Amino acid sequence: MATQLTADQLYPGSIPGLGSEGTMSIRIQKTFEALFTLEEIRGIFRGSLPTGLDPGEEALLGQRVAELKAIVTDIEAGTGTPRVTKIAGTLDVRSREEQSINIHPIQAAGRLTTEARKALISYGDGYSTCDFCRKPFRLDKITKPGIADFHGELTKFLNMDQARVVPGARRGFQAVASSLVEKGDTVIVSALAHYTEFLAVEEAGGIVKEVPLDGKNIVTAEATAQKIEDVQRETGKLPVLVMIDHFDYQFANEHEIAGIAKVAHQYGIPFLYNGAYTVGIMPVDGKKIGADFVVGSGHKSMAAVAPSGVLAMTEEFAPKVLRTTAMVGDLTKRKFGIKEVEMLGCTLMGGTLLTMMASFPAVKERTLHWDDEVKKSNYFIDALTRISGSRVLSEYPRKHTLSKIDTTGSFDTVAKTHKRRGFFFSDELSSRGIVGEFAGATRTWKLNTYGLSWKQIQYLADAFTGIAEKYQLPVQK
Amino acid sequence: MATQLTADQLYPGSIPGLGSEGTMSIRIQKTFEALFTLEEIRGIFRGSLPTGLDPGEEALLGQRVAELKAIVTDIEAGTGTPRVTKIAGTLDVRSREEQSINIHPIQAAGRLTTEARKALISYGDGYSTCDFCRKPFRLDKITKPGIADFHGELTKFLNMDQARVVPGARRGFQAVASSLVEKGDTVIVSALAHYTEFLAVEEAGGIVKEVPLDGKNIVTAEATAQKIEDVQRETGKLPVLVMIDHFDYQFANEHEIAGIAKVAHQYGIPFLYNGAYTVGIMPVDGKKIGADFVVGSGHKSMAAVAPSGVLAMTEEFAPKVLRTTAMVGDLTKRKFGIKEVEMLGCTLMGGTLLTMMASFPAVKERTLHWDDEVKKSNYFIDALTRISGSRVLSEYPRKHTLSKIDTTGSFDTVAKTHKRRGFFFSDELSSRGIVGEFAGATRTWKLNTYGLSWKQIQYLADAFTGIAEKYQLPVQK
Repeated sequence: MATQLTADQLYPGSIPGLGSEGTMSIRIQKTFEALFTLEEIRGIFRGSLPTGLDPGEEALLGQRVAELKAIVTDIEAGTGTPRVTKIAGTLDVRSREEQSINIHPIQAAGRLTTEARKALISYGDGYSTCDFCRKPFRLDKITKPGIADFHGELTKFLNMDQARVVPGARRGFQAVASSLVEKGDTVIVSALAHYTEFLAVEEAGGIVKEVPLDGKNIVTAEATAQKIEDVQRETGKLPVLVMIDHFDYQFANEHEIAGIAKVAHQYGIPFLYNGAYTVGIMPVDGKKIGADFVVGSGHKSMAAVAPSGVLAMTEEFAPKVLRTTAMVGDLTKRKFGIKEVEMLGCTLMGGTLLTMMASFPAVKERTLHWDDEVKKSNYFIDALTRISGSRVLSEYPRKHTLSKIDTTGSFDTVAKTHKRRGFFFSDELSSRGIVGEFAGATRTWKLNTYGLSWKQIQYLADAFTGIAEKYQLPVQK
Repeated sequence: MATQLTADQLYPGSIPGLGSEGTMSIRIQKTFEALFTLEEIRGIFRGSLPTGLDPGEEALLGQRVAELKAIVTDIEAGTGTPRVTKIAGTLDVRSREEQSINIHPIQAAGRLTTEARKALISYGDGYSTCDFCRKPFRLDKITKPGIADFHGELTKFLNMDQARVVPGARRGFQAVASSLVEKGDTVIVSALAHYTEFLAVEEAGGIVKEVPLDGKNIVTAEATAQKIEDVQRETGKLPVLVMIDHFDYQFANEHEIAGIAKVAHQYGIPFLYNGAYTVGIMPVDGKKIGADFVVGSGHKSMAAVAPSGVLAMTEEFAPKVLRTTAMVGDLTKRKFGIKEVEMLGCTLMGGTLLTMMASFPAVKERTLHWDDEVKKSNYFIDALTRISGSRVLSEYPRKHTLSKIDTTGSFDTVAKTHKRRGFFFSDELSSRGIVGEFAGATRTWKLNTYGLSWKQIQYLADAFTGIAEKYQLPVQK
């Protein structure tokens, strides 16, 4: 990067020149202020007695309600000036999802649904899931809120036999690797494997071996079989696990998941399906794929608070990966029978799980409309590639909403002579209310259109075309 | 338990007979409804274009604002009827922190601060921390929001050399055990060790050996030395780690932490200080204690969303426990240099971390007033033990706000003949707006007074005395 700018320069709090007479921004600001004032009102109730507020608390409540009313008037009228700019004295109010169209490659499908945001308000406190924890004292057995039912639904949703929530997909990889991989064992991953797969294997003492890509950057079943053979020949032992991303994080190309599962099973090797970019946005049928394990990410693709995720498996592997503790205190003879070793007992005891649960009905529904998401992705990519010198590096037509694109021949030609260098492009996007690109990058980069409406997609495509036209880049009609 | 009641029977949504003309409950209900309506307003902005709302969206916003105004009027007047009772169709609105005094043993210090609740509203979305993630692409290096600074402050707060946030204290134990414990190695824990310590050692392939308690249920340095000697004699090898809770989860008795650290070091064994019940509520000076590792819990004691926690350590152990990945892709030669194996890269990428950060100024401040918390704890225990037949099983005077008490000789004598059996006591507490006791338990049980104001403590003590008097249990004046 040629020039270093501060984040504040790159991402101003408001969008100059946008909004109907600038009212958009202030209404969002006031919406946050109203939420924050209500949290202060909650604070008054929390500090009071169950019998009611005392006169001092009543006075304070009255004051806060008066402030709230003024704020609501501002929301309605689009008036007022920002009153709260920091949380806890240092944290900016994050309003980019409200203010902008966010094309960040990994944030799109982790945005909370409105119901999840409500659940979070209600269940944010530490151990909020544990009010009615009864014997046998394990998170996935709690019936109020309906955590036990949710586990059942999640299992069915993925068409597997058992499911557990975990603190991120990576913790799912870890649980499996820790259970199946001994020191020196080999695990097959793809040449596009996510780094967390590397780390999970490394932590278990194993070694990763990568399946090469074909000419179209696809991991094939054939190449996987060949790699298994290679490993067996080189090490004298079969790999102990095959772990492949359905869609990878680099190109979001679709890999031959079902074929790979079949190949793995031909060698008697279990297959872990990495659904970080699929579970929660498109239908995933674990049994049909032939997966022994399905891993998904809550904060990446299931509209949940981080860190969250799911690890599902077949009955065959549950006794191994979900084994319960066998440790006995030598002195006290204590046992903690039902607690699962790899889960370390309970996993997501609060807002993380409750957002997953609150988003789940919407998440199930949205997977049924994946085809429309893919259409919107292609619509945008088509518009982009009409800008001369732009191309898509991911497979095309797109089968996913995450895409890697190359604008070296288009926007980067402008960057070469622009006084802001590569940042000119971020400036242009930002001035149009579009955020989430890697600031300063105009060569090869990634973006994600997931969850944008047709109206927003159209706006996004027009914005790119508009920037091209502003800088006289040829655009094919 | 003799009788099984549904949770709804035990914990009614409102408190009959409480509140100034019953307005308390409806005002809290309406506060949640206002928050939820504002989340729906946010949803409108999220679905709109950066240029502003279209006429349909404006109309919807107008409608929501009108609803909001009516709700605010209800908050002010204490009028109205509940309109929203479920989130996402199934989840109850959790309002026990607002409606009641909550004495749940593990929830008290994990309740969010008001600033944390604001941060959560703002940063709930999946990867909300990652807007400005730049090279070297690791969570603890992000400067906007100030995550890097927070890590520095956290390190200083614990007086250690390095700190990382982790998904719960248990994941801190796991990282240390996984780094230091080889198959068959012994780890010294206490006879009051939390089950997650057992599991972390088991997951690493080690074996726990428990230090016995003295006559006062304290883990002493002397007993620890003896146990180390025993292990060495029996196994021919020294334990590889000593892991002891400063205050245990059973009695919350204080154990001889500094002495135990010294003993461990005399044998050249690293010492892990389990501060799940200390870090975030009382001052913890890792170096002064002589800890090689300090582990704390975000959702238990740092007013943060679960799962969250901290693992701090000395420079001596950082290269081992925070080792960066050494794995290289055999084919692509990919390396992910700065990612730490035991952390699996980034850990808390969203609301979990941001609530820890937003609570942190208040958390630092509250540790300075720990003595007052202990006074309130003793005030309550004194009142309880004046009820004839009641006693405290934890060390006394109390040095902590979590206490194990025995009411077999008091409230359980009532339970024996009451038609609701042990549930009579829960009913009585609940009718006074007190929740968090283990329903149906009137013999030995735990409660936590952390964070209650003097006014609330007084109310709590009076409630217990009042119940005793109602059932003619002698109360010493």
